[in-house]
Parts: sequence; C-alpha cells; structure tokens
Amino acid sequence: MLAAVEAGGTKFVCAVGDDDFKILDKISFSTTYPEETLQRIFDFFDTCGNLKAIGIGSFGPIDINKDSKTYGYITSTPKTNWRNFNFLGAMKRHYDIPIGWTTDVNAACLGEYEVGSASDNSSCLYLTVGTGIGGGAILNGKIVEGFGHTEMGHIIIRNHPEDDFEGVCPFHKNCLEGLAAGPSIEKRYGIKAQNLDADHKVWRMIAYYLAQALMNYTLILRPEKIILGGGVMNQARMIDLVREEFSLLLANYVETPDLDSYIVTPSLGDHAAIVGGLILAQRIL
Amino acid sequence: MLAAVEAGGTKFVCAVGDDDFKILDKISFSTTYPEETLQRIFDFFDTCGNLKAIGIGSFGPIDINKDSKTYGYITSTPKTNWRNFNFLGAMKRHYDIPIGWTTDVNAACLGEYEVGSASDNSSCLYLTVGTGIGGGAILNGKIVEGFGHTEMGHIIIRNHPEDDFEGVCPFHKNCLEGLAAGPSIEKRYGIKAQNLDADHKVWRMIAYYLAQALMNYTLILRPEKIILGGGVMNQARMIDLVREEFSLLLANYVETPDLDSYIVTPSLGDHAAIVGGLILAQRIL
Ligand SMILES: Nc1ncnc2c1ncn2[C@@H]1O[C@H](COP(=O)(O)OP(=O)(O)O)[C@@H](O)[C@H]1O
Ligand SMILES: Nc1ncnc2c1ncn2[C@@H]1O[C@H](COP(=O)(O)OP(=O)(O)O)[C@@H](O)[C@H]1O
Ligand SMILES: [Zn+2]
Ligand SMILES: [Zn+2]
Repeated sequence: MLAAVEAGGTKFVCAVGDDDFKILDKISFSTTYPEETLQRIFDFFDTCGNLKAIGIGSFGPIDINKDSKTYGYITSTPKTNWRNFNFLGAMKRHYDIPIGWTTDVNAACLGEYEVGSASDNSSCLYLTVGTGIGGGAILNGKIVEGFGHTEMGHIIIRNHPEDDFEGVCPFHKNCLEGLAAGPSIEKRYGIKAQNLDADHKVWRMIAYYLAQALMNYTLILRPEKIILGGGVMNQARMIDLVREEFSLLLANYVETPDLDSYIVTPSLGDHAAIVGGLILAQRIL
Repeated sequence: MLAAVEAGGTKFVCAVGDDDFKILDKISFSTTYPEETLQRIFDFFDTCGNLKAIGIGSFGPIDINKDSKTYGYITSTPKTNWRNFNFLGAMKRHYDIPIGWTTDVNAACLGEYEVGSASDNSSCLYLTVGTGIGGGAILNGKIVEGFGHTEMGHIIIRNHPEDDFEGVCPFHKNCLEGLAAGPSIEKRYGIKAQNLDADHKVWRMIAYYLAQALMNYTLILRPEKIILGGGVMNQARMIDLVREEFSLLLANYVETPDLDSYIVTPSLGDHAAIVGGLILAQRIL
C-alpha cells in the first residue's frame, strides 16, 4: 500500500491508497504541536497494514536540498511550534521505508498532473489562492525546483490603477500574495471575502493580479496548463475574469493553448495534494 | 567534429569544435535574406570536413514543438524576411546528420551551464540585457521549456516611483524589456545608453527593474546561479547595483547563494551561445 501525508498549517490529512492512487482509508485532524501531530500520524498508519512508501506534501518553507544539514526540516514558518522542526527525520525514525518529501502545492501539482486536470499534458502549474498564495510546477514530468522549492506566491506585480492598497505580505507588502490572497480582501473592506457582493469591483482587481502572475509564469515556464485552486477561486466569476485579464495582458505575445483549456480548475478538488502524496510515494519506490 | 550556428538578428556565427567544445574554426557574417544567409552557412561548413551533428541557437520566436506543423520555423519575428521561415527544415535538407534546435539565449545558457560560470551548478538562468531582453534557464541539466520556449524578457514588473516612462515594448509598453533594455534608455534621454554619465540616476532605475525580474525568476525557478550578459551590463556599476536592489526586494524571503556568486557575469563572454551550440550538437548525438 502507498501512504501520503498532506501537512497543512491548519490541518493534516493522512491516507493510504492502492497502486492506482485510489484512496482506501483517510483521516484528518488539526495541526497542533509537532509531537502530538506526529503521534496521530503514527497511530493512523500503524493500523493500515503494510506500507511500501510514504509521500509527504508539507506546508513550508521546507528544506528540500539533500546536501543540506537541515534537509527535511520545516524552516522559517510563522508557526513557531514547527519552526526548524525535522519533520522528515521524525518520520524516518518511525518508518524504515522510502519517504518522498516536497511542498503541499508541489504535491497538489503532481496529483493534478498525473491523474487530474493535466493528465494529458507533459507540463503544468498549480496555484492555490486562499489564505496565502502558493504554487508548484512540473516540466517534462519533473517538479520544478533548484536551490530550493518555488515560492510563486511572492512575485512582484503591479498595483491596479484604482487600487492604492499597500498590501498585507509581512515580507514584501504588495507582492502577489499581499495584494490578492483572501486576507488582503478582508483587510481592504473589513469583511470576509466570501461575504462581499459578487459584483464588487474587487473581483476584477484580484483577477488582474492573478492574470499578471499567470503571465509571468507563462513567459518563464511555458506550462501546457495552469490549474487554479483555493478558497478565492470559489468566487463564481473569478476564473472567467482571470482569463479575460490574462488575454488583455499577454496581448497574444506568445502562443498558449485556448484559454478555456489553459486556465482551469483542479479536477481533484480538495484531494489533489493527498493524491499527489500517493504518487510521490510511488515515484520514490 | 561538432558544428554550431548562432543565428542572430543582426549577425550569424558558425563554428566547428572538438568534443571538448574547443572552437577550431569560426566565421561570422551579417544576417540578410534567408537564402543568402543559408548559402553562407553551407559554404562554410562544406569546407570543414566531417560533421557529426549541428546545434542551432536562433533568434526568435521559434517553434520548438516537435508535434507542430511549423516545428523548426522562425515564427512571428519583426524581421519580415525571416517570418515563417523553415530554418531547421532548410538545414536538414542540406545535412543528413542530427541537428539540435533552440533559442540563442537557451544556447548561451547551455554554454555557461556546461563550461562557463555555472559549470559547478545543476541549474542556472542566463539573461541578456541589450537591444532586447531575453533569457533561458536550465534545471536538472535540462533546458526549461514546455508549450514553447521561454520569453523572460517580457514579464510584468513595476515602474520605479521616480520613473514615469511609458515603455517601448510594442506588445506591452512597460514590460521588463520595455523599461530596461538599451533602447528604453536611449528613448528616455535621446542619447545612446553608453554615452550617459556613469553617475546618471537611470542606472539605479535599470538595476531596480532587473532586480525585480531576478526576484521573480528566483521565486519561480530557484536557479543556483543567474548570469547577466548583454550590452547594458557593460555599464560598470550595473552588476553591483542589481545585487543591491535584489537584496532589498527579496528581503531575505528565500535563501539564495551569497549574492556575489549568485548574480554573476558570463565567463564565456560573447562565445556563450556558439559554445552552447556545440554542446547542443553533442547532446543530440
Ligand atoms: N467564495 C469565496 N470568494 C472569495 N474568497 C473566498 C470565498 N470562499 C473563501 N474565500 C477566501 O479564501 C480564503 C481561504 O482559502 P482556503 O484555500 O480555503 O484556505 P487555506 O488557504 O488556508 O488552505 C479565505 O481568505 C476566504 O476568505
Ligand atoms: N556601457 C554601456 N552601458 C549601457 N548600455 C550599453 C553600454 N554599451 C552598450 N549598451 C547598450 O546595449 C545595447 C546593445 O546590446 P548588445 O547586447 O550589444 O546587442 P544585441 O542585444 O543587439 O545583441 C544597446 O542598446 C546599447 O546602447
Ligand atoms: Zn510576499
Ligand atoms: Zn513586452
């Protein structure tokens, strides 16, 4: 059996699945302290029988550099309990099987790439637009990473001419996440994003920011597909607005697939990262 | 022997080299009409003896999608003589040997990656800042490409607070190339970039634009090294200004190598693309 852990900042999901990445059993619980959370992972998997490998998609930033002394750690997270915690090490001490290690968004990207919206493509990018903005990409079947994992949510974009909001990113103020993630909307209007009117002008601004990001990702990576997930994408017209703004910005400069098939929603929904974890487990065998 | 063609918009370079990518013979001539230029390529290589393979790094945009009907074509270039010209096809009709095909900047990136500034790294990005801005990247030894080749020069960045210049990109006005390539400097002040004072305030603005681009490339690709070439980088203080502005913008958000070894100049100088062509030739064997 394959095993997967989706380690999120607010909740963890653990699952086991078969070789076709069908989920056979699953549990989910709140993220508390590392020791307590680890114990819940162990308790679950210990009841699951024979595991061949585990794939972990974790909140971050995490250290993925195998030559680094802190390989496998969660590093400079704002969640102080978890800062500099050797997550992979703790898992390896308990399980003597191969364990794959990547970010939660890379895992989601892998899920969508292998069995989701991009299963017919040889490259894709996955972006989640929720409390934060995070992304992962796959080119030629491999996760895009180098000196470390990507941090696509913090790229520089331009303020909308009608938006003088200063941004909420603690590092960069008005980076993409600072201007377009859910909390930026709440901070602008003092009301939760999902409670704003569907006709509110903010939705086109958010679409403009996301479209700028997608333009930059397109020019730098040339993925065959871009998959947009996360709470903010629940806004009904958002995906269409993003396609519209993207088309205006790109001005046909490079060719992309037809926008309705280029910019899409995740077909695995909330399961992308946990299914991606199973795939990561199989890839490491 | 390995052969290489660097096909530039103003001049072509052809070379042959040995298996260590040492250039044995080389010729360079102006870019005129396709037929005439091709004939000069043939005339040169026909005197060079036995060629094993050819690597072409071409100005673009070019079609690199092997499934496309126009694979091997130079596509929507502003140089009308060359628009929709089947360059690779013309070469293949003359030479019955393997021919590698990529952009000039990808070829330069490959040269710097294998035997230049990034020869100790497993990933790098090469950016040329000249008449235009173009970039190429390599991750895990492979050129970054997907639906097409990258077009890193046209990403969206923010105007400097003191720069209300509207930009010169015919597609996007104030994209990176529109704000920071050589002609934008000339358009602002009516004098060639190289004739402006070394203390002119424009250099910090240009550095700010390049630093934004480097920040976005860093967050989206995480290369181990970024190599900056092209005429504008001849400005003496430019590389230091770029490092300074980059450091301010990134705000230590992600780890990079020490900036003096992360942001560097090409060690192959003007030879990067032609050496990269030889490497491309060997890779296709
Ligand atoms: N219908 C909606 N329209 C716009 N924003 C929404 C909507 N529903 C949820 N959100 C916002 O999405 C964010 C939560 O995103 P989500 O992806 O669910 O969580 P997380 O990023 O923490 O995993 C919140 O900021 C919330 O206000
Ligand atoms: N010392 C310099 N400082 C700033 N800009 C320069 C300098 N030297 C050349 N340039 C600019 O670089 C551009 C030419 O770049 P180059 O890389 O040589 O050509 P190309 O991009 O056409 O291959 C011109 O716009 C020129 O004004
Ligand atoms: Zn940020
Ligand atoms: Zn442009």
